[in-house]
Amino acid sequence: MSERSAFRFAHPFRVRYAEIDGQGIVFNAHYLTYYDTAITEYLRHLGFDYEAEVKQTGDDFHLVKSTVEYLAPIRFDEEFEVGVRVPRIGRSSLIFELGIFGKGETRPRATGENIWVNTNQTTHRPVPVPDQLVELIRGLEDEALELARPG
Amino acid sequence: MSERSAFRFAHPFRVRYAEIDGQGIVFNAHYLTYYDTAITEYLRHLGFDYEAEVKQTGDDFHLVKSTVEYLAPIRFDEEFEVGVRVPRIGRSSLIFELGIFGKGETRPRATGENIWVNTNQTTHRPVPVPDQLVELIRGLEDEALELARPG
Amino acid sequence: MSERSAFRFAHPFRVRYAEIDGQGIVFNAHYLTYYDTAITEYLRHLGFDYEAEVKQTGDDFHLVKSTVEYLAPIRFDEEFEVGVRVPRIGRSSLIFELGIFGKGETRPRATGENIWVNTNQTTHRPVPVPDQLVELIRGLEDEALELARPG
Amino acid sequence: MSERSAFRFAHPFRVRYAEIDGQGIVFNAHYLTYYDTAITEYLRHLGFDYEAEVKQTGDDFHLVKSTVEYLAPIRFDEEFEVGVRVPRIGRSSLIFELGIFGKGETRPRATGENIWVNTNQTTHRPVPVPDQLVELIRGLEDEALELARPG
Repeated sequence: MSERSAFRFAHPFRVRYAEIDGQGIVFNAHYLTYYDTAITEYLRHLGFDYEAEVKQTGDDFHLVKSTVEYLAPIRFDEEFEVGVRVPRIGRSSLIFELGIFGKGETRPRATGENIWVNTNQTTHRPVPVPDQLVELIRGLEDEALELARPG
Repeated sequence: MSERSAFRFAHPFRVRYAEIDGQGIVFNAHYLTYYDTAITEYLRHLGFDYEAEVKQTGDDFHLVKSTVEYLAPIRFDEEFEVGVRVPRIGRSSLIFELGIFGKGETRPRATGENIWVNTNQTTHRPVPVPDQLVELIRGLEDEALELARPG
Repeated sequence: MSERSAFRFAHPFRVRYAEIDGQGIVFNAHYLTYYDTAITEYLRHLGFDYEAEVKQTGDDFHLVKSTVEYLAPIRFDEEFEVGVRVPRIGRSSLIFELGIFGKGETRPRATGENIWVNTNQTTHRPVPVPDQLVELIRGLEDEALELARPG
Repeated sequence: MSERSAFRFAHPFRVRYAEIDGQGIVFNAHYLTYYDTAITEYLRHLGFDYEAEVKQTGDDFHLVKSTVEYLAPIRFDEEFEVGVRVPRIGRSSLIFELGIFGKGETRPRATGENIWVNTNQTTHRPVPVPDQLVELIRGLEDEALELARPG
């Protein structure tokens, strides 16, 4: 189980009333919205211009798999962070590891993983992760990053 | 206040667990999703092909105003209908009147209104509501429809 | 139409990818979520402890009406603020006036209003707005506030 | 990969405009809402009264893990079904296997799994899945069900 210290990047949130269910805790689907939003902020933090990349190359990332493990509930109005890190880059795939931490906490309320595959929008076939993005991630994650490609 | 009998068209729903809040009742923002979904079904019921119209004319409807009046809560798992009718068509605008009714009930749990304006996508100026749509609405609403245009 | 300067309080947001629709702009229902979230922050800013008040008095506010006027779209990833102010307090009712402003902009992308009525949870009848809340709002809004009660 | 025929129960849906993203396809978080809603319908189909069970026993199911595999996108206005089946019941846990199928299709657009654990609300410790629910699931799933308990 990933501790808060495993993440060099995290994005802060506060639970909206719109996000809780009849038990006063965050409804499960919203975890994926938190994950998605935090990944956008991770890429912004890296300095990666997603939209420019898509326009220039005609390639785009597809989400192929999401996993959420719910460890402890998150309540209305709580402040929390979503940690994001990339533990591994494959030829065409990126793995985002995710962790939700109550403000100031070290043990996660939830963990998860989103797997993206870079795809040519015309042929619908996997294409390599852009070199620029690999370099930006390597710059942040450093020795914690596993690369499945010669590099 | 509109009774159920005022609506010649209504679309059935059942409250999803994702849609309730900490008090076990539907969170207010979801009323607009119900309204939007019911209007889509109203147009389908009329036989109006929204996407084909947009593609052919380059015009598109913009939502310019929404109103919701909350009269009685809707609870998890309840079945309800959203009544939709068009009481008035202006030159460029359509008014959708909306009512939410518990299954088998005649008095609304909520009422509302969405106002659409047909707009040219290039000039961003209002353009007339398509004749075909006016005729389809007139066919359904009949003498209950007020037309603000020579017809 | 309310300018940005009409609001002494505003809460910052950034559009999540989960909130846009097929045209790349914020879907209408999310405006109500933004309004609701900004009102929570307004009450926090005032120092009003909503949950303590409900527990102590057994009274609770009900949302009775929402209005949204959509003036210009909000796009994915845009930063914006939701201005909140209370222009008028009735005996049992609070009116929240709302405005959405692109970052640094003075003219609204959307305006709106939420009307709350304070209600006894046992009798379901309207009861006065708590004096403490009236004073806190008066302290913030000052001469811009209209009070419909002797005070 | 589960074919449509693997599921004895499926619940129909149609994509709401509120559920699509900037690419015109269902945003990933909504898959979990579809899964949750379909599981509610599966339990209703079995004749299991979830709320009565919670009230009577003081036990409640917690969602501990969700997985979604996205195989092909689902577009605005598409009709689809979510298949639900329980391949395995542990002492305290239920595994729901899920599949999303375009109307009339046999190969899934998405698959997934939700794992529930029955928990005592006072001690927060796992407790056995209610016998009544085990029998109802066995009645539907028959020889396709694996039971991890003497039975």
